[in-house]
Amino acid sequence: MKHMSIAISEQDYQKRIDALLAYIHQSGYSGVVLFDRDYILYYTGFAFIPTERPIAFVLNKEGEKVLFVPYLELTHASQISFIERISSYVEYPYEKHPMIILNDLLVELGIQQSIASDGEGYPWIFGYRGSTLHELTGVKPIIIRQFIEDQMMIKNEAEINLIKESVKWGHLAHVFLQRFTRVGLTETEVSLKASNQATQIMLDTIGPLYQAQSPFSSGAHAGYRGQIGRNAAIPHALANNITFQEGDILVTGANAPVWGYNSELERTMIIGNPTETQKNYFSHMLALQEIAFETIKPGIKCSDVDLAVRKYYQEHDLMKYWLHHVGHAIGIRYHEGPFFDLGDHTIIKPGMVFTVEPGLYVPQLGGFRHSDTVLVTDTGLEMLTYYPRDIDSLTIPV
Amino acid sequence: MKHMSIAISEQDYQKRIDALLAYIHQSGYSGVVLFDRDYILYYTGFAFIPTERPIAFVLNKEGEKVLFVPYLELTHASQISFIERISSYVEYPYEKHPMIILNDLLVELGIQQSIASDGEGYPWIFGYRGSTLHELTGVKPIIIRQFIEDQMMIKNEAEINLIKESVKWGHLAHVFLQRFTRVGLTETEVSLKASNQATQIMLDTIGPLYQAQSPFSSGAHAGYRGQIGRNAAIPHALANNITFQEGDILVTGANAPVWGYNSELERTMIIGNPTETQKNYFSHMLALQEIAFETIKPGIKCSDVDLAVRKYYQEHDLMKYWLHHVGHAIGIRYHEGPFFDLGDHTIIKPGMVFTVEPGLYVPQLGGFRHSDTVLVTDTGLEMLTYYPRDIDSLTIPV
Repeated sequence: MKHMSIAISEQDYQKRIDALLAYIHQSGYSGVVLFDRDYILYYTGFAFIPTERPIAFVLNKEGEKVLFVPYLELTHASQISFIERISSYVEYPYEKHPMIILNDLLVELGIQQSIASDGEGYPWIFGYRGSTLHELTGVKPIIIRQFIEDQMMIKNEAEINLIKESVKWGHLAHVFLQRFTRVGLTETEVSLKASNQATQIMLDTIGPLYQAQSPFSSGAHAGYRGQIGRNAAIPHALANNITFQEGDILVTGANAPVWGYNSELERTMIIGNPTETQKNYFSHMLALQEIAFETIKPGIKCSDVDLAVRKYYQEHDLMKYWLHHVGHAIGIRYHEGPFFDLGDHTIIKPGMVFTVEPGLYVPQLGGFRHSDTVLVTDTGLEMLTYYPRDIDSLTIPV
Repeated sequence: MKHMSIAISEQDYQKRIDALLAYIHQSGYSGVVLFDRDYILYYTGFAFIPTERPIAFVLNKEGEKVLFVPYLELTHASQISFIERISSYVEYPYEKHPMIILNDLLVELGIQQSIASDGEGYPWIFGYRGSTLHELTGVKPIIIRQFIEDQMMIKNEAEINLIKESVKWGHLAHVFLQRFTRVGLTETEVSLKASNQATQIMLDTIGPLYQAQSPFSSGAHAGYRGQIGRNAAIPHALANNITFQEGDILVTGANAPVWGYNSELERTMIIGNPTETQKNYFSHMLALQEIAFETIKPGIKCSDVDLAVRKYYQEHDLMKYWLHHVGHAIGIRYHEGPFFDLGDHTIIKPGMVFTVEPGLYVPQLGGFRHSDTVLVTDTGLEMLTYYPRDIDSLTIPV
């Protein structure tokens, strides 16, 4: 009996690896060593939190696949990845450095010259220190991140379904966030309560089908981007715990990683009746987003979208409130390439998933930004997020 | 009027930079470029979440300091870092790549040969693509991560105070976690409730003094390490949502980043009256930890601690339940070097802060591990965590 699953299938993982293998053959490489957590998840389904203990995925030109892990991850790796061969080392740093053991594995697999990799070696994070692949093997690795990034850009149906599942639970968390936001409460209590309730309902609903596979979060989350009131003009500020006041302009964010896949939902909300000034910037922000929605289609360049949106900023004398490009791709990373940016001339293709989030940041007043997640289809786009975008729906009663 | 602050002072940041500068002079470098988020936080107090938009800290041999940020981080960086000069680029990827602009800055600051850095270039994360420093400047950078890691190992009084503050709120979250854990509840609901309440109380208590400065969490957190019942034998498993049962052995974890600094508190808890077998492993685990506590002192090697603890594993035929070394340093990273590991011969010095967490992982039964955070003093150690360690205190009534 087959059980319902929403996870990426073994066949899909193998297809990804086959494409990588074809690239290796075509380029004449002896094999590939990957250290990046997101790339390893993409090819093997093995999700882990990177630490000082190196983890790698090794593939030789014959198609032999090995996960290289510390001993304490051995059982875990065997359980959650479809890769059959798991090679482990005792501990880091230990008497024999893990990289020496990895090198033995490379020699055994015939990966000794023309080694492809995603980096110079395992990154020096969390106190890790070690040799580069060059120092280890005598051969400078060929960095193939570009190929991998290009491959990850195009999502298949299973990936799109996971992003759609993510959208739903981000939506629920945002509904709670909006419902609980009231003058006198703090952003932290509202954000925690909304995220907490949405996560519990999500787990009650799809718990047996669900894994987050994210190092940042394991549930649904909605919160504020430190962009309340006057602070709202500063994007990406790390959160403070501000008490809501009438007149505040709030920029929110919601997401729920599902089997590693992310979506993005952001809304501008206003506490109390919006002023004419607030309404004015809000409607410009909606118009900017509309232009992007109308422009995005397969065959044009990502930069064309930024160009079209910038034309509106310029025509309406809004460039002084501009801070960033129109959006980014999203998937296993909550930001990934390509970007709706003047400098990104990647051709838009069906299967790409993007955020659309042009913003206006008005000093002393606040930030105005919605972010929606959209899928590029054969003919145009499909809006995946479905949260109301109009000002009436996003006004918090006082 | 000076206001109470628990944050790292400008003087302390400048002292850190002065030490780096002395190293640059001594080595004859023209300057240093840092890309690592934790290093930038350490030297400048600027906390940010790394994305595809490169951020760097640049210091030349004359002591000129510049934060290099995207335009949308300009206001934020000016507000939260003591670095006076912030240099910004418009956007990534944009028409002119940020690395070209960074290179102009390096030329202006006279950093053109013997360039020290923490990496080959800005890492290719979240869809970022760009040239290495070598490609950009024609000069291969000298990697000085080792110097920086050594500097970060020794905590001063302000850092130790932040870790102590972190311990308190991790403790509170863990008290709630233990109090709320009951047969029939799920780990997610208990963990969310405990973390939520502890965070709110923490913010009500020290909110105006507090910033998390962590990319992973902004409050107090306590939860389970996916190590319940039979799963407890697998460390570092990503969480599932398990329902508590009588007889479960739970391995917990609590932390609360405070101005970027972390602590670690982990406990083994048992639901219902412990069996003789459970008591046996529990007391071995306590004994292993005691050996580490007694061994740690300034002047000996980190490997000596692992060696002493391993002797107990071997004498009591416990190596079959061994999975990892005794512990790691902790600070701005929740894992950092040095490590209590056979292969780490770093001399233990006053001001180092470590976790002590030898474990026993018994197949089909569960994991047994406490983790305590300890400070090395001039004469031995000071236990910073103060949560009960005995089995009676850690038994959950049924």
